[in-house]
Amino acid sequence: MQSGETAILLAHCENKDGIFYDIIDFLFKNNGNIVRLDQHVDPDSQHFFIRAEWYVEGFSIPKDKIKDFFTTLVGQKYTLNWQLNYSSTKPRVALFVSKYSHCFYDILSRYDTGKWDIEIPLIISNHDKFAPVAEKFNVPFYHIPITKENKKEQEAKELKLLQEYKIDLIILARYMQILSGDFILHYPNKIINIHHSSLPAFPGSNPYKSAYVRGVKFMGATAHYVTEDLDAGPIITQNVIPISHRESIAEMKRKGTDIEKIVLSEAIWAHINHKVLTYKNKTVVFN
Amino acid sequence: MQSGETAILLAHCENKDGIFYDIIDFLFKNNGNIVRLDQHVDPDSQHFFIRAEWYVEGFSIPKDKIKDFFTTLVGQKYTLNWQLNYSSTKPRVALFVSKYSHCFYDILSRYDTGKWDIEIPLIISNHDKFAPVAEKFNVPFYHIPITKENKKEQEAKELKLLQEYKIDLIILARYMQILSGDFILHYPNKIINIHHSSLPAFPGSNPYKSAYVRGVKFMGATAHYVTEDLDAGPIITQNVIPISHRESIAEMKRKGTDIEKIVLSEAIWAHINHKVLTYKNKTVVFN
Amino acid sequence: MQSGETAILLAHCENKDGIFYDIIDFLFKNNGNIVRLDQHVDPDSQHFFIRAEWYVEGFSIPKDKIKDFFTTLVGQKYTLNWQLNYSSTKPRVALFVSKYSHCFYDILSRYDTGKWDIEIPLIISNHDKFAPVAEKFNVPFYHIPITKENKKEQEAKELKLLQEYKIDLIILARYMQILSGDFILHYPNKIINIHHSSLPAFPGSNPYKSAYVRGVKFMGATAHYVTEDLDAGPIITQNVIPISHRESIAEMKRKGTDIEKIVLSEAIWAHINHKVLTYKNKTVVFN
Amino acid sequence: MQSGETAILLAHCENKDGIFYDIIDFLFKNNGNIVRLDQHVDPDSQHFFIRAEWYVEGFSIPKDKIKDFFTTLVGQKYTLNWQLNYSSTKPRVALFVSKYSHCFYDILSRYDTGKWDIEIPLIISNHDKFAPVAEKFNVPFYHIPITKENKKEQEAKELKLLQEYKIDLIILARYMQILSGDFILHYPNKIINIHHSSLPAFPGSNPYKSAYVRGVKFMGATAHYVTEDLDAGPIITQNVIPISHRESIAEMKRKGTDIEKIVLSEAIWAHINHKVLTYKNKTVVFN
Repeated sequence: MQSGETAILLAHCENKDGIFYDIIDFLFKNNGNIVRLDQHVDPDSQHFFIRAEWYVEGFSIPKDKIKDFFTTLVGQKYTLNWQLNYSSTKPRVALFVSKYSHCFYDILSRYDTGKWDIEIPLIISNHDKFAPVAEKFNVPFYHIPITKENKKEQEAKELKLLQEYKIDLIILARYMQILSGDFILHYPNKIINIHHSSLPAFPGSNPYKSAYVRGVKFMGATAHYVTEDLDAGPIITQNVIPISHRESIAEMKRKGTDIEKIVLSEAIWAHINHKVLTYKNKTVVFN
Repeated sequence: MQSGETAILLAHCENKDGIFYDIIDFLFKNNGNIVRLDQHVDPDSQHFFIRAEWYVEGFSIPKDKIKDFFTTLVGQKYTLNWQLNYSSTKPRVALFVSKYSHCFYDILSRYDTGKWDIEIPLIISNHDKFAPVAEKFNVPFYHIPITKENKKEQEAKELKLLQEYKIDLIILARYMQILSGDFILHYPNKIINIHHSSLPAFPGSNPYKSAYVRGVKFMGATAHYVTEDLDAGPIITQNVIPISHRESIAEMKRKGTDIEKIVLSEAIWAHINHKVLTYKNKTVVFN
Repeated sequence: MQSGETAILLAHCENKDGIFYDIIDFLFKNNGNIVRLDQHVDPDSQHFFIRAEWYVEGFSIPKDKIKDFFTTLVGQKYTLNWQLNYSSTKPRVALFVSKYSHCFYDILSRYDTGKWDIEIPLIISNHDKFAPVAEKFNVPFYHIPITKENKKEQEAKELKLLQEYKIDLIILARYMQILSGDFILHYPNKIINIHHSSLPAFPGSNPYKSAYVRGVKFMGATAHYVTEDLDAGPIITQNVIPISHRESIAEMKRKGTDIEKIVLSEAIWAHINHKVLTYKNKTVVFN
Repeated sequence: MQSGETAILLAHCENKDGIFYDIIDFLFKNNGNIVRLDQHVDPDSQHFFIRAEWYVEGFSIPKDKIKDFFTTLVGQKYTLNWQLNYSSTKPRVALFVSKYSHCFYDILSRYDTGKWDIEIPLIISNHDKFAPVAEKFNVPFYHIPITKENKKEQEAKELKLLQEYKIDLIILARYMQILSGDFILHYPNKIINIHHSSLPAFPGSNPYKSAYVRGVKFMGATAHYVTEDLDAGPIITQNVIPISHRESIAEMKRKGTDIEKIVLSEAIWAHINHKVLTYKNKTVVFN
């Protein structure tokens, strides 16, 4: 079997006669050795989604011309939303963290052991609590405390750092601050947050308390892209576990940490492997 | 091992020194041969819950005096909410149904095969669609159509029937009508509804459509006691299944029917076996 | 959107350059209006699987020539295992049952309410217990008791009935008899059994008892095609639920009935909608 | 509410009249302020299990005499298996690790952040790969390579270390060596292993490969106490996730790491909080 660098196409558009065939044609007529092909037509909205991954080596179109050729042969014929990524390009990820450790350690552990093919060039936190942990894992740590008064300038400072470090993806690993709409606009579908409930149930603060008060028999966590509407962005991954009267709020929090960290890491995995398409505030995750 | 009729105590109160000991004392000092004992103290609210089931035969206190004795020796010492039931008393259940068949057939199947130790003396429906099915299962069927105009008198008719048939429990097996507050007051914690979402997510109508629109990765169903607040009563049972972009709304509805019927039947099972305690709009289900 | 009769292609073969493209070409060049297309290449075995469903109306190749054309244009170029089905053809299903009611009622309920687009022209049982239920649902019931001595002739009788009724699919709805290898050979991948454990755990008899003894924390059920090896055929669907020390064997059996019936019905649904491909004693279920 | 040191009783015996009452009597008559009380009678084996946790302060019997009093007043009247632990005593845990990082990092992260009230005075490994990680987390690391030839003496070395460090609990965090029966006898129900399948399915090596070959629709992990029979000891915790044809073996391994680490950590949590009772090669976990 072949190995080596792959090209990954993510595309979606209104389902039109020929779009799927044209993409398949583009790949096969040019000797694309396909690693994985996923396609989906939503029967309710009649929207078309595709993810194709194929080896760069052996493809008739040279790597630096694939975008041009695809634009001409396929992209411009349809109002296609698409992006092309290469497995050789490591996503550059910024970690935003506050005082909760579980997601933070989980991400750093995967990074430290090379499980994820990414770079984490910086950590940003509104507290200095985790500076020693960042040091332990050799990641630069920026302590940027946020208050109502300084939020605008501090976010400007953060944005500057993110630019300097050429960040592709921001992870809010239980970062307990709400980002401004302005900030979010710089990274559309590039900021992943973990919320500690099974959204849309219990948005906002204190979801475990709310779940306890409502007496639900399941609790969960949700990873989603951040949009201006709090806890209302496109959901990438969720998970839930059964609970009963036996779970105190403290126990829900304890169990929640495990769900949160796995749900967040699954979302990151999907994103950095270019498996997520976003459309109409929803995601298609080809897993 | 002993078998035969059992007494089942369900009780709850603010957790006070001695309450648990007094109940245990009541049972053991009077030679209660215990089938099952469950007790719970909620660490957050410091509320005490107990379910005790023991054989009537061999118990020092004769069956017809257990209530008196318990009142004197335990009940009046605490502000105890309690009820005593006997396994020999078959709950009398009314089935309310509309046009959806899945919960309806599921309940009738369990009833027909004797899986549940209950009587279903009548079925009430606002449509006549299921009259032939009711006949198939030999249960009297009352067609009581509801309109905005006749709701009050029709509900009065229903209440009269429920009284005549000495109904203990009402099951809304996807009954597509909202009961009036007045009606509900006659059967507090005695009306079980199945809602086709994982509450508190997607209350009200069309939850599958809403789940599709929100793009959630889990869907579910909830059985709860009916209160005046729509879909907001104490949750008895819930279940969920993972979904993805692959599930159309139609497929969600299809899969949902299976979750709904099992979740509802589990709630009925818990109720008719006197395993449910209700407190502060929540349940403790001793399963 | 178009509706009406669809053609459903199920095919698999060793993954070869061009196979996918040729199938896509066959569909698109002939104006196939595709309802749903699923394809999969197993990365470990490099085996290719496809399911394509498209409208018969509007397809350039007339319905009665699709098989010929596909054979010539695609099938014979590859060592392709394939079948073509039409949504207009109702699968004819025989129900084998013994003394357990849950799967039996569940299947009859779906059939009775038209949820499944099938015919059930007969029920076969080694007991007469369910004759009245079969009558209730208007399905002919054949009581064919099996003993060690008469097994061969009784199976011959059954096979004759199955032929007479032109049966496409046999459902063992907790049928407590082991079919002979001979019998099974007549219906390869056309007999679905439900086993009351999460196979390969606890094959054979009394799996709930075995699960209790082993002290597992999950129990489940498995629907699989029947092969000569007991409980070892290709798995179609499975489900599991968490259990603990609180579940007695009786409670496991009770909860098990619900898992069994849903798992079996999901497998039947997948089969009758032509969503299951079988290869190397495993299934690909395009759901 | 009271806080502070608690005593935790774990006990089990054949269910006899009076045993439960005697224990309750012991606690209540001596002013035990109970934090949590769990009790269970297995209806199939008629075996009795109890866990009681109460505050040391305020209890009429002084801490250093509780064992004596309990022996005299309760223990000797029944053939009771019991142990008494105190929340103030930190379990001393040894970590055995090989080359897989996920459980190892997960445990160290919880330890590092004080989520678990334990001491990890040493790590033992047959490889030196994780020495730098151990150093990062400030835990002494012993590299003790095992071969067929040196197994006996190396295990002797390990046992000596475990004694020196007064180890209460050994965690095999994907330790890829089989411990000798002799070794195991020193730590009955005190060695927890994580196996990467939902036992009893797929014991032994390569369970993900086996799960792939069998074509199961669920995969999982199991934490259990180590006994002489490989992968056959008392199960403490399990978890499973649905899989389909879409999961390659590599993907199963990837997803498996997350299930494994959570299942193992839940088992450790239950053990170090004295929530696990073992009887007849099974566990009762009071959670």
